[in-house]
Amino acid sequence: MSDHIRIVLVNTTHPGNIGGVARAMKNMGISDLCLVEPKCFPHPDADARASGATDILERARVVATLDEAIADCGLVFGTSARQRHIPWPLVNPRELAAIAAPLAGKAKVAVIFGREDRGLTNEELQRCHHHVHIPAVESFSSLNIAAAVQVITYELRMAALELEPLQRPQWGTEWDIELAEQRELELMFDHLERTLVEVEFLDPDNPRQLMPRLRRLFQRAVPDKVEVNVLRGILTAVQRRITQVKKDKSDV
Amino acid sequence: MSDHIRIVLVNTTHPGNIGGVARAMKNMGISDLCLVEPKCFPHPDADARASGATDILERARVVATLDEAIADCGLVFGTSARQRHIPWPLVNPRELAAIAAPLAGKAKVAVIFGREDRGLTNEELQRCHHHVHIPAVESFSSLNIAAAVQVITYELRMAALELEPLQRPQWGTEWDIELAEQRELELMFDHLERTLVEVEFLDPDNPRQLMPRLRRLFQRAVPDKVEVNVLRGILTAVQRRITQVKKDKSDV
Repeated sequence: MSDHIRIVLVNTTHPGNIGGVARAMKNMGISDLCLVEPKCFPHPDADARASGATDILERARVVATLDEAIADCGLVFGTSARQRHIPWPLVNPRELAAIAAPLAGKAKVAVIFGREDRGLTNEELQRCHHHVHIPAVESFSSLNIAAAVQVITYELRMAALELEPLQRPQWGTEWDIELAEQRELELMFDHLERTLVEVEFLDPDNPRQLMPRLRRLFQRAVPDKVEVNVLRGILTAVQRRITQVKKDKSDV
Repeated sequence: MSDHIRIVLVNTTHPGNIGGVARAMKNMGISDLCLVEPKCFPHPDADARASGATDILERARVVATLDEAIADCGLVFGTSARQRHIPWPLVNPRELAAIAAPLAGKAKVAVIFGREDRGLTNEELQRCHHHVHIPAVESFSSLNIAAAVQVITYELRMAALELEPLQRPQWGTEWDIELAEQRELELMFDHLERTLVEVEFLDPDNPRQLMPRLRRLFQRAVPDKVEVNVLRGILTAVQRRITQVKKDKSDV
């Protein structure tokens, strides 16, 4: 689904970061990694941080120049701090994804990440169609490179998932119980109100806003059939106990 | 701006991850970190990975139970893999941010992250109002904890920035040159067309779609005044050179 995305790392210093990038990519279903002159690679620290994404590292292409890394790409994004001498079309990660995701099957898209300490040079940034900036706070704007890759690839995946005609269930997973029907809820609220009167929490002559507040609370939760049955079971138990106590008293 | 967000880490094993979380938080302007029974903390690995976010680590609260960590919170999210025995209201990070960001100044919001290997227990997840799931690929769904915090805090910051009445300039930074006006563009296209005829690239009797294609290309770039002047300078230079060659020929 995101086969057309290539992550390009330029002169990465710490092999652990390369591993972290591989893991972030694999989490989001992206596998094309290209390393431009990494300082130490392969390296055990890369494998350790990859944590199961070593296949990405094994297939990674190591090249000598940025031009080689992006030669076959139709669209190139370079990650950048906000202020640059020459203004350049600048997008945030969500805008990047909105542009890049629909190009699946049409063009190869590269996203380039620079050195841990200095990012990309102006010359490298000028190779890019767009620059992408992750909107960090200005006083502390440098993300770890694996964290930056995670944010960008997350946005790419979010955009790709939106392109799929996928119907997400309301609660994320399939709810295992049918939702209660409104009439079942109304019976439950009736039951609740009667019970509240019985326990003398609700004064029928001066009900104030008690029931509306309780309705709002329960309805916000959108209860299912079993939950409503459980609630009614509780109310019945309360009523039964009250009857019991009354009977015990009259027995005395 | 996101003072109401608390990041809670439960039983974190690797202190380096705690440092990575602190950095991710500080990048996104969030500073309230609470650690429930961390394995090793404080630790030099945490400081190293924090990379300038040691202030977050110094102010981090260490507590013995999850209940202590979230006692004063009005809304609690727990990070979770998709499949759980009991379905629970499940949001993605963007939905989390849409719910949590507007609560600034109104309620404290906690986002809980579990152990590196096992996540949160069912009991811990049942403490939460909502679960949040980062939509990773199913076959490789476990994100590094600092990467997961980066994604969630990034979404919170994106949502907070959208709440701010902030006018983003079209090109991200302030463009240093005024954009070309349409009449300047038209003059440029006229100039281009004449030049193309002069160089016999464009046949006026059979123009096909050449000019529309060129217009689409240049207009997509939204050129500024200086760029248009540069382009016209190039065209003038071409014309001048052709005239020169013609003259040289006739001189021979």
